[in-house]
Amino acid sequence: MSLVVIGTMAFDSLETPFGKADRIVGGSALYAAWSASKFTSVKQVSVIGGDFPQQELDALTKNGVVLEGVQIKKDEKSFFWAGRYHNDMNTRDTLATELNVLADFNPVIPESYQDCEFLMLGNLVPAVQMSVINQLKNRPKLIVMDTMNFWMDTAMDDLKEVLKKVDLLLVNDSEARQLSGEFSLVKAAAKIRSMGPKYLIIKKGEHGALLFYNESVFYAPALPLEEVFDPTGAGDTFAGGFIGHLARTKDISFDNMKTAIVAGSAMASFCVEKFGAERLREINHDDIASRLQDFVQLSSFDISLV
Amino acid sequence: MSLVVIGTMAFDSLETPFGKADRIVGGSALYAAWSASKFTSVKQVSVIGGDFPQQELDALTKNGVVLEGVQIKKDEKSFFWAGRYHNDMNTRDTLATELNVLADFNPVIPESYQDCEFLMLGNLVPAVQMSVINQLKNRPKLIVMDTMNFWMDTAMDDLKEVLKKVDLLLVNDSEARQLSGEFSLVKAAAKIRSMGPKYLIIKKGEHGALLFYNESVFYAPALPLEEVFDPTGAGDTFAGGFIGHLARTKDISFDNMKTAIVAGSAMASFCVEKFGAERLREINHDDIASRLQDFVQLSSFDISLV
Repeated sequence: MSLVVIGTMAFDSLETPFGKADRIVGGSALYAAWSASKFTSVKQVSVIGGDFPQQELDALTKNGVVLEGVQIKKDEKSFFWAGRYHNDMNTRDTLATELNVLADFNPVIPESYQDCEFLMLGNLVPAVQMSVINQLKNRPKLIVMDTMNFWMDTAMDDLKEVLKKVDLLLVNDSEARQLSGEFSLVKAAAKIRSMGPKYLIIKKGEHGALLFYNESVFYAPALPLEEVFDPTGAGDTFAGGFIGHLARTKDISFDNMKTAIVAGSAMASFCVEKFGAERLREINHDDIASRLQDFVQLSSFDISLV
Repeated sequence: MSLVVIGTMAFDSLETPFGKADRIVGGSALYAAWSASKFTSVKQVSVIGGDFPQQELDALTKNGVVLEGVQIKKDEKSFFWAGRYHNDMNTRDTLATELNVLADFNPVIPESYQDCEFLMLGNLVPAVQMSVINQLKNRPKLIVMDTMNFWMDTAMDDLKEVLKKVDLLLVNDSEARQLSGEFSLVKAAAKIRSMGPKYLIIKKGEHGALLFYNESVFYAPALPLEEVFDPTGAGDTFAGGFIGHLARTKDISFDNMKTAIVAGSAMASFCVEKFGAERLREINHDDIASRLQDFVQLSSFDISLV
């Protein structure tokens, strides 16, 4: 039984108030895989060009990421995105997007991936996410879907079809409002959950994340940081840590999902400390355990005296 | 030993997307007193006109709020504010402000208030806040100060003088940024704490609140609400619940401040359910205990499985 992650593997050129990084590796599946691989092995589905560095693939392999499902189109170029973050680090301008290999991506799920128990549909064209679901012979125990406002603007019908098939949706607060047409996040959550996913996580960046399930809600804090060096990939890293913990423990109870959100938040708090996925490559289990303790300190309280 | 609260008692006319309320009682000290009185007795300092309803004063007295320090200027009118909230409930337009009795308010601290151990300086002209501090013969165990952007725009020098005298400052996130000139709230907190207060609470509305002290930080969640009916007074209610709990337990440890923030957040979550202070008048100790349990459910997690 295994965790399968699908999404983009790409080059990013980034400008933040702290500096520039030119053509570093990125993409939703790259961040999610680095993050999830700290918890369990990962079977990756993606597409890259001949320009993607072999040492980056080797580093993933060495860390327990199986790349059999990653198509390499030798004569083509990898997906490329360039962006510039504003001073508040919450907004950014896209400077360039070159789809390249992503333009006609048809994922093929290898036979060795058919034991998939946990499926992470990283942010990608909804039709491609659907194709992956349809190729799996047995329905995974948990299907988690990430998406973004771009697909709501351009492929809402397809997106709604995928929504019917998934267990859990990950969106940020503005996307939750756009998808539901509701301003109140509590009302938005109820409406989105009626579209298919039993669980909904609303990511609020520096304000933490909310998990909705039936009548229950969990509020995970975000660690207040002195500086967000580069927010690129933080959401994908959160998703990878979240599903990585669930896949390792094979427990999809609401209580374990709370733990998984804190694990994802801890991973995201590392991600933003350096450019790209650099910090994710450095950290070990002790670093993660120590950061999780920070989250306990940050948010524990005792009401017995009230 | 006692809790002294100073601030405005006023009439408010409010418009929200849910309706209108015309000339209902409000003001920073009214909300703070209703909230704190659920935890301990309160000695109130304020000023009102002859138009302030006697039954509102009687209701406060009945709930343990001492009004000896409330000046009644029989021939004048109470402070009046009118505002209209936008659909997002986070922004509002001021439609009218009539200072009336507040224009030349010189608070006089009664001799019976000189046992003050906990002092809540509600949002008010900084010079008036300073006058109260100076009138106390013994320095209280804890001085908490609330303020707002208006005083930063119009009386920053006075505000900075008061800051040097207080233990804890309460501001919202945009005010913390304005006061410090820093965008990062962690950096803003360090700068503000260098101006005087050892403790800083940054209120983030629907995103909860942060407490900073030395190297420690606590993140209190806010209860996700289906509807915020009327946000007026939520910050003052938070402050009242916070200092009310501390005054009742006479414990100003960091751990008890965490509890106090959750108590304040619970009180604020009641406040916004109806117009004005109406909901605060209705609730009893069982309602508060039940709401506190909601906060535990909302934010507890277990990292032992990671």
